[in-house]
Amino acid sequence: MKVLIIGAAGMIGRKLAAQMAADGRIGDEAVEALHLVDVVEPEAPAGAGIAVRTEAADVSVSGTAARLIEGRPDLVVHLAAIVSGEAEADFEKGYRINLDGTRDLFEAIRIANGQDGYRPRVLFASSIAVFGAPFPARIPDEFHLTPLTSYGTQKAIAELLLADYTRRGFFDGIGIRLPTICIRPGRPNKAASGFFSNILREPINGQEAVLPVSEDVRHWFASPRAAVGFFLHAATLDGDAIGPRRNLSMPGLSATVGEEIEALGRIAGREALRLIRRESDATIARIVSGWATDFDASRAAGLGFRAETSFDEIIRVYLEDEMGRTA
Amino acid sequence: MKVLIIGAAGMIGRKLAAQMAADGRIGDEAVEALHLVDVVEPEAPAGAGIAVRTEAADVSVSGTAARLIEGRPDLVVHLAAIVSGEAEADFEKGYRINLDGTRDLFEAIRIANGQDGYRPRVLFASSIAVFGAPFPARIPDEFHLTPLTSYGTQKAIAELLLADYTRRGFFDGIGIRLPTICIRPGRPNKAASGFFSNILREPINGQEAVLPVSEDVRHWFASPRAAVGFFLHAATLDGDAIGPRRNLSMPGLSATVGEEIEALGRIAGREALRLIRRESDATIARIVSGWATDFDASRAAGLGFRAETSFDEIIRVYLEDEMGRTA
Repeated sequence: MKVLIIGAAGMIGRKLAAQMAADGRIGDEAVEALHLVDVVEPEAPAGAGIAVRTEAADVSVSGTAARLIEGRPDLVVHLAAIVSGEAEADFEKGYRINLDGTRDLFEAIRIANGQDGYRPRVLFASSIAVFGAPFPARIPDEFHLTPLTSYGTQKAIAELLLADYTRRGFFDGIGIRLPTICIRPGRPNKAASGFFSNILREPINGQEAVLPVSEDVRHWFASPRAAVGFFLHAATLDGDAIGPRRNLSMPGLSATVGEEIEALGRIAGREALRLIRRESDATIARIVSGWATDFDASRAAGLGFRAETSFDEIIRVYLEDEMGRTA
Repeated sequence: MKVLIIGAAGMIGRKLAAQMAADGRIGDEAVEALHLVDVVEPEAPAGAGIAVRTEAADVSVSGTAARLIEGRPDLVVHLAAIVSGEAEADFEKGYRINLDGTRDLFEAIRIANGQDGYRPRVLFASSIAVFGAPFPARIPDEFHLTPLTSYGTQKAIAELLLADYTRRGFFDGIGIRLPTICIRPGRPNKAASGFFSNILREPINGQEAVLPVSEDVRHWFASPRAAVGFFLHAATLDGDAIGPRRNLSMPGLSATVGEEIEALGRIAGREALRLIRRESDATIARIVSGWATDFDASRAAGLGFRAETSFDEIIRVYLEDEMGRTA
């Protein structure tokens, strides 16, 4: 199996490539070659026993997508995107990268399909930002997409294209609607959602973290390891079993900030909790109040996708995968 | 109020323009000028007391949309589309006209908005083809869009764009999801949905019509007059009252073919029923089985949109509007 990952320098892309390189296979199929692409050249996973090619390329530049699929990869994973805040701040750039870039990739595959019957599995990273408040208490699989950001709009449009291109037989696509990923490794960033990770990761590392919202704020989470698992599982799924509705809300954990903090106390000790500094931020509180809090992700669960079921588990994944510890 | 109608040579466009010309106003506002555009030059409504300009133009050709809005119309009605069958048969043409053409129009308005604050009301003709089976018995306003045609995909994408451009303040858009229009005037055509109109219109006119499905087939209808009413009502709605979810399933009548035929008998007499020839068509039956049968269009009803509530009424509208009769 030849694999192309676009957006391979991002957090999930790096972890996904590393996992494929370490396993040397996806499900029952050996990975023969791994082509890693991003706007900055991705690092090759250390110690990979398979052929890895890394490349800096911008898929939104005309002709790039056609060139990237020249080797006819069996699996195309499309993770590249302008993030939510930037897509909101720069309207044209968001549409150019997140909509036109994705459509260019889909079009390149469609044209290749017409030339030689090429029909890869395409995995697309979507987001719960395709949903917009007001929500039911648990968002069902059949709830409509009414995004309240340009980023969410671009993801929702890409989902529709993916479903239509799949229905027409140009490729075999699956859209993976990711929960908020927690605990994100690395340093605190300015994303409005950053605090969900910061208040766990920083205290674990003996650093102070700011909590800008109240403890009763509820949100929807999965670990980086679960996210990698979603893509690996989707790579091997029988497309016929999915049917025409190709975009799936992934399973996750619905939990409050208070539950996050309790889990931190259980695993890192009560003293870690003293490193969380409460500092209300009305802007962040307002943004977060428009986010989904819970999903009934029955379809994805029925297709075998799995995520964590407690914050204890999410914290243990961080300790194991980022700190080499067993908690 | 200056009005631009794109797709003005189609059935709804002609009727909408004629109504605006006859009334000389929309709600409380006088219509000062009517600019009618289609790929073939539309006819000007007879006896219009207002300035009417007709023009042949293809909105999917680069630069056309920007030119059409040079006069800064207060109301832009976008009806132009490649129909379902053609969009399915010609993938590239469907996306070029239905997606790129619509996006070009929205982009032209966005750029004008940046230049001089131009912010028109934009009405977009969407379709129940944005929905795809399986459905609940009545499709609620919050049901997801999973189109099973490229046409439905293109309409669903345009809906998402309309909502985002409205949210960003570039224009004030409303998407009008039309039921199947019945009774369509004119001659029978080859559309899979044509028989719903044919089995009423042809017998009324003393002609034979073919019924290719069984009488228990249920579908969702509104008259051409109701469709015109949707656009006129939407033209005057307070945008703030709609909120961010700008695409509305219009009200309609859920009825079976058997109920259609009973209404025909009541209004046109039992002898008209003998002109309906049963001739099963498995292909049409299969296509129709994937269509929606009923909607709970509460939001649109709450905003004051109205449609017929019986097939007797739909038939009377045809007799009055197309045959000058009072039934």
